[in-house]
Amino acid sequence: MDLHGAFHVYDTTLRDGAQQEGLNLSVADKLTIAKQLDGLGVGYIEGGWPGANPKDTEFFRRAQEELDLQHARLAAFGATRRAGVRAADDPLVAALRDSGAGVVTLVAKSHDRHVELALRTTLEENLAMVRDTVTHLREEGQTVFLDAEHFFDGYQANRAYALEVLRTAAEAGAEVVALCDTNGGMLPDWVSDVVLDVIDTTGARVGIHAHNDSGCAVANSLAAVNAGATHVQGCINGYGERTGNADLVTVVANLELKLDRSVLPQGLLREATRIAHAVAEVTNFPPASRQPYVGTSAFAHKAGLHASAIKVDPNLYQHMDPLDIGNDMRLLVSDMAGRASIELKGRELGFDLSHDRELVTRVTDRVKELEQRGYTFEAADASFELLLAEEVEGTRPSYFDVESWRVITETRTGGEAISEATVKLKAEGVRYVVTGEGNGPVNALDAALREAIGQAFPEVAKFELIDYKVRILDQGHGTDAITRVLIETSDGQSSWVTVGVGANVIEASWGALVDGLTFGLRRQHG
Amino acid sequence: MDLHGAFHVYDTTLRDGAQQEGLNLSVADKLTIAKQLDGLGVGYIEGGWPGANPKDTEFFRRAQEELDLQHARLAAFGATRRAGVRAADDPLVAALRDSGAGVVTLVAKSHDRHVELALRTTLEENLAMVRDTVTHLREEGQTVFLDAEHFFDGYQANRAYALEVLRTAAEAGAEVVALCDTNGGMLPDWVSDVVLDVIDTTGARVGIHAHNDSGCAVANSLAAVNAGATHVQGCINGYGERTGNADLVTVVANLELKLDRSVLPQGLLREATRIAHAVAEVTNFPPASRQPYVGTSAFAHKAGLHASAIKVDPNLYQHMDPLDIGNDMRLLVSDMAGRASIELKGRELGFDLSHDRELVTRVTDRVKELEQRGYTFEAADASFELLLAEEVEGTRPSYFDVESWRVITETRTGGEAISEATVKLKAEGVRYVVTGEGNGPVNALDAALREAIGQAFPEVAKFELIDYKVRILDQGHGTDAITRVLIETSDGQSSWVTVGVGANVIEASWGALVDGLTFGLRRQHG
Repeated sequence: MDLHGAFHVYDTTLRDGAQQEGLNLSVADKLTIAKQLDGLGVGYIEGGWPGANPKDTEFFRRAQEELDLQHARLAAFGATRRAGVRAADDPLVAALRDSGAGVVTLVAKSHDRHVELALRTTLEENLAMVRDTVTHLREEGQTVFLDAEHFFDGYQANRAYALEVLRTAAEAGAEVVALCDTNGGMLPDWVSDVVLDVIDTTGARVGIHAHNDSGCAVANSLAAVNAGATHVQGCINGYGERTGNADLVTVVANLELKLDRSVLPQGLLREATRIAHAVAEVTNFPPASRQPYVGTSAFAHKAGLHASAIKVDPNLYQHMDPLDIGNDMRLLVSDMAGRASIELKGRELGFDLSHDRELVTRVTDRVKELEQRGYTFEAADASFELLLAEEVEGTRPSYFDVESWRVITETRTGGEAISEATVKLKAEGVRYVVTGEGNGPVNALDAALREAIGQAFPEVAKFELIDYKVRILDQGHGTDAITRVLIETSDGQSSWVTVGVGANVIEASWGALVDGLTFGLRRQHG
Repeated sequence: MDLHGAFHVYDTTLRDGAQQEGLNLSVADKLTIAKQLDGLGVGYIEGGWPGANPKDTEFFRRAQEELDLQHARLAAFGATRRAGVRAADDPLVAALRDSGAGVVTLVAKSHDRHVELALRTTLEENLAMVRDTVTHLREEGQTVFLDAEHFFDGYQANRAYALEVLRTAAEAGAEVVALCDTNGGMLPDWVSDVVLDVIDTTGARVGIHAHNDSGCAVANSLAAVNAGATHVQGCINGYGERTGNADLVTVVANLELKLDRSVLPQGLLREATRIAHAVAEVTNFPPASRQPYVGTSAFAHKAGLHASAIKVDPNLYQHMDPLDIGNDMRLLVSDMAGRASIELKGRELGFDLSHDRELVTRVTDRVKELEQRGYTFEAADASFELLLAEEVEGTRPSYFDVESWRVITETRTGGEAISEATVKLKAEGVRYVVTGEGNGPVNALDAALREAIGQAFPEVAKFELIDYKVRILDQGHGTDAITRVLIETSDGQSSWVTVGVGANVIEASWGALVDGLTFGLRRQHG
């Protein structure tokens, strides 16, 4: 029996998660996150609302070309048809139909006052909107899920009507009716009672969509599942509007590890820590260290009294084996990298480290030391590969020697700012002094560096800096902060990410630029 | 009937909360936090472990002299006597007895394997240790609570023994037996079952002490209360080891606002947001914006579509009235912003726009236009307020005229990078040419700018750049990208966020810096 298919793990990071204050995702960010979520093995990825804004429309267009999902199906989110028009004639419904997504998640009002005040239509017309839209999309061959917005509040205000909305959707062919605690104020016992009643009364397949306003999003999701829900919506890292949506990884880990339900493909839960952190790099929200299961502090123990007992039996001091979620017990502060993950990562990059214990120790120690200084390798595979190559081969791959660099940015009243960089380096025995311009200091440095190296290695002309991310560590101490820069470089065929760290943002960027070019050259020259 | 006395709200921030990775509290910090917790009206404040470390001993000494608690009683935490000695002869027990605290919370092992492996004594002797220590402290006139460590795991391993520990403590005079989910892996239904059994079997007054490892600390605490517990332990802001303890404010808010239990003195819950943030200032952990109830995002709404319905009835879009917890609804100005949300946002900032339709249109159009160019105002209230002031007052608030600026960053082989900025500007009729240094280009510009302006406006010496965030928009086209910078500036009392945008990251930073100083000066000068 395909348990993965039987239970729906449904991620809405790209739509509801993006409602979080300060969270802004580009189309490229969304595609990257979708790939990560697929790697976690979620069953459904809600990509956005095609037709409602150009960014989401573009996401679905590019997803068809660029996303090769192994586990997940893509879902398009959107509303039922407007009042008074045929579903087939509503351009927003058409955008869902034509999105290329196999699944459409239709949001519908199920709270009588919201129908009247927000939709400004009659309760009867709202039912017709649900019925028509579900029917139309089903006829067009799409799977339809219904998100019953404000369901729990609506159920309290007018139980009969709220249930009627669900029944209408299910009868028209919606595969799931997801009960949304849109305002997030529910408590587990209340959720449980409502889910039991809904299943009993309507016979529909029920899903749960919880927000964390009462600090119970995870528990509410579990309460719904215990009461019979077989579809759980949430966001990785608990992103979402206000206090966030249910943290999907925590929910899934509780289901798999505590309630013995296989809801992800075998073995993929072990990727959760890595993936949660990789997504945090894309959103540029620092991962919460105290996040359940995947936080860097989640299995961190202050050394001392417990240490000897932990040696006897670590399970005396942890609620589960952290390896099951890809995390690690830590006895010392910033002991981030485990040997096992280094070995696994090495294998992923084509280095078999399993028979060289000393090498693994050396790499693990260096990663720990560098991570303590602010580096992160979770999202910077290329820098990690250079480090690994250095330890395996004895010297760091290097194709040029930098003598010095300088960059000036200046402006005048009313004028645009301009940046100019000068780089002095030796490559293939020749000394180059090159000045480059750019619309920012890093672009100017990149231009000068690539022009200088390009005289020795013409292939770098193809390289392009395609993404640049800055994170200030040690927040709250602006001037003493350490800066971490992630740079993505492309050669037109593929791309790779490198990391640089420094007290000075330009210095950190320089380190990542040099790594980025070195990695690209190594690919060509070995 | 004194309901406050009937139910125990017990805060352990100063002891268990301080186990959090990276959290270090001085004695002065602890005294400050204790005053804040008393202001919230908690019944008990666990101050630390006197005798176990000099800092906690000093805290209890100074607390007797300096703390004038209105609502709370101070509790000293410590262990039962060592094996094989009389309670009266154990110096650690004596330290508890002599701490001056009216309440002692004794931690005892209730898991058989922990007794054998960590305490290295017999199950029988452990019971004697509980009995003797409770008896001794009761005879000395102290109230005693028992923290049954690893209780839930112990109950699963050896129910009879775990219950026997509780029974022994209760019979010796412990007023409360608190069941500790020390490893934090419980789920609400399990907690509920165990609490029901404990009350049924022992008749003891039961407390709950939950950790958040399964993301259910709040729900587990509520499940225990629903099953009959009348004593809840937790930490403000959910501080604590690993994933943290139950967030006491969230638990209390759920009890008071959702379950109709008066557990704090009348009216004090409205202080919770202020107090939670004040404590965060002391711990130097930035308050989590998505924290339930008290987070700055907890009642923040992004969706423009909702704004018109919010005007009709805000309760349609929030699970409770934020004023009940001292928080406030906030509308985020985003590119989906309609006229309604601009109007509401203006009111929030003290501008009544309701009678000037043309002004609202102008502001809405400018916000849309600026957001299209990469600005975001949802996280940059200060920049939005400057924009609003400009439209309302006809000119943009301005305290200085910039002539030009320049910043150089350079390095040499093996050397650190250094940044140096020169700013030329006029303020109060005087021209300033100032050079500043920094560990990055933005810090150097900030230093030069503040030094120049500081000669005209000395109060800017208090301003500090406390956070800096960079986003590259239009990813996938590295060199054509637009950069967005968010800068948070503090004057020591409060902080504000400004936004800058430009093709050049330094230019974008400059815009945000200038806005940040202008906003701060406007506050002082109007």
